[in-house]
Amino acid sequence: MIERIAAGRGEFLVFALTPPRHDTGRDRAREIAEATVARLQPLALDGLILYDIDDETERNPAERPFPFMPTLDPADYLADHLSTWPTPVIVYRAVSKYAPEELRAWLAAQAPDRVMTVLVGAPSSATTGRTSLADAQALRREANPALALGGVAIPERHSRREDEHLRLLAKQEAGCRFFVTQVVYDLNAAKNLVSDYHYECRARGVAAVPFVFTFSVCGSMKTLDFLRWLGVDVPRWIKNDLEHAADPLEASYEQALATATELIAYCRGLGVPFGINVESVSIRRVEIEASVRLAQQLRTQLTR
Amino acid sequence: MIERIAAGRGEFLVFALTPPRHDTGRDRAREIAEATVARLQPLALDGLILYDIDDETERNPAERPFPFMPTLDPADYLADHLSTWPTPVIVYRAVSKYAPEELRAWLAAQAPDRVMTVLVGAPSSATTGRTSLADAQALRREANPALALGGVAIPERHSRREDEHLRLLAKQEAGCRFFVTQVVYDLNAAKNLVSDYHYECRARGVAAVPFVFTFSVCGSMKTLDFLRWLGVDVPRWIKNDLEHAADPLEASYEQALATATELIAYCRGLGVPFGINVESVSIRRVEIEASVRLAQQLRTQLTR
Repeated sequence: MIERIAAGRGEFLVFALTPPRHDTGRDRAREIAEATVARLQPLALDGLILYDIDDETERNPAERPFPFMPTLDPADYLADHLSTWPTPVIVYRAVSKYAPEELRAWLAAQAPDRVMTVLVGAPSSATTGRTSLADAQALRREANPALALGGVAIPERHSRREDEHLRLLAKQEAGCRFFVTQVVYDLNAAKNLVSDYHYECRARGVAAVPFVFTFSVCGSMKTLDFLRWLGVDVPRWIKNDLEHAADPLEASYEQALATATELIAYCRGLGVPFGINVESVSIRRVEIEASVRLAQQLRTQLTR
Repeated sequence: MIERIAAGRGEFLVFALTPPRHDTGRDRAREIAEATVARLQPLALDGLILYDIDDETERNPAERPFPFMPTLDPADYLADHLSTWPTPVIVYRAVSKYAPEELRAWLAAQAPDRVMTVLVGAPSSATTGRTSLADAQALRREANPALALGGVAIPERHSRREDEHLRLLAKQEAGCRFFVTQVVYDLNAAKNLVSDYHYECRARGVAAVPFVFTFSVCGSMKTLDFLRWLGVDVPRWIKNDLEHAADPLEASYEQALATATELIAYCRGLGVPFGINVESVSIRRVEIEASVRLAQQLRTQLTR
């Protein structure tokens, strides 16, 4: 996948994990990692994403549907428990949480043939945190220029400000070679962003880099509320259908599959390289299993 | 189609016409009507819609991309030139243009087995005009209660205010037995409205009446600007694709077909009865022909 991204090619499948809670004991964390690996192995994933969870309460004054739980550092979780994972791992870094020297040391220590990183800025422009996104991007260029860098892409921000494609191109100038979206429920917003990005690339004579779209299933209104709290736009018809479905998890699975299928066709039509990321938003077993099933189904739609 | 609507059933196809310009001579109007009938005959339409064009300049202060041209009164055009049309005709009435007595006389004179009407309120809430929508609805109940009544449904208004489904239910209480949308480019907005309408009907124990979705092709950016001026939300990706397409008309045809196909599947899934209306927004020959082709293609998707 690392070569594929370097060549600006898509059609890859990744799965995103949130590391276990911060207070998880070492043995229990190992068990969780082993169970996860066993569950994901049949998917023949091209890579894994490890999220770096930040307390985003400052970004949203509304009550958080699930309490914030600090998680293990994804870099530690990778080093301690996932060192035998067979394909590349994309480690997120919520840069505002770390001091520059801490980040530099981590970046320098990563093997570019095995690890990629997505650097994420502070959740709110009101807070700067310990390192800014621009500084973190510069650190990566200095400390480990071969380490493939990705950025986050937020279609919802494009719906409000109509300039997310320009932000992406600025990130690309700062070294980003792929983008990962947050969970896509609003197909229209995702298409608008990809479209504006594509035509702006064309106007500038710049090659589009792979867009990794994230999908997820949602088995309860509480999970849906949480997604909305996180800033995901969930169209009213999707919310209504889930609310009234006899089996919301199955309905959500079908919706995610339909959205992904359409986005895949749209990107192929435009010629924008894309990857697929599936994440499990909740830690409920049935939701995790449905996510794995979704990844399995989407795998069949990708060409190698 | 009239019986179908009375029974709350959908799956019908109509085509919408704008009458010729007001200054068209009688012979020329007859020629236009004959050419139109010849063009539409192969479609085996369930009905025809005749629009009543109002000067909406007061609704939108931006410059109108095409100048406003008063057109022949659709009721006159029907009586004078389309009396041999074989299926029902839905005549629009922009009620603010008419005095109550004028409207009453027209309503009373219509044959309910051949004509239906859609009453449309003033284009802006700032103007009341000669008759209000509520008064016109009451006139229909008094003068000709058997005459089937429809109303307009505007997904874009739902995107802004989230109460269009409640307006529709109020119109239904005032006698409406079907709704016709303006041209649908924003699939998401249309689904949101249908969904909220459906679940509100269910909560009230009221049967949903047929939703007639309007589709159109657009062969130039000027036509697209005009649609947007009229209040149609055109997603950025659609605008971009048309702007960059080698053949915008063909691209627009494909988009309209895809949108209609998805909306049909969505309504069937929900169990909301629906009809399809195709209109030609411009009077350019290639656009009219593409509209006819669109109607022909959509005909194959409807079950009798």
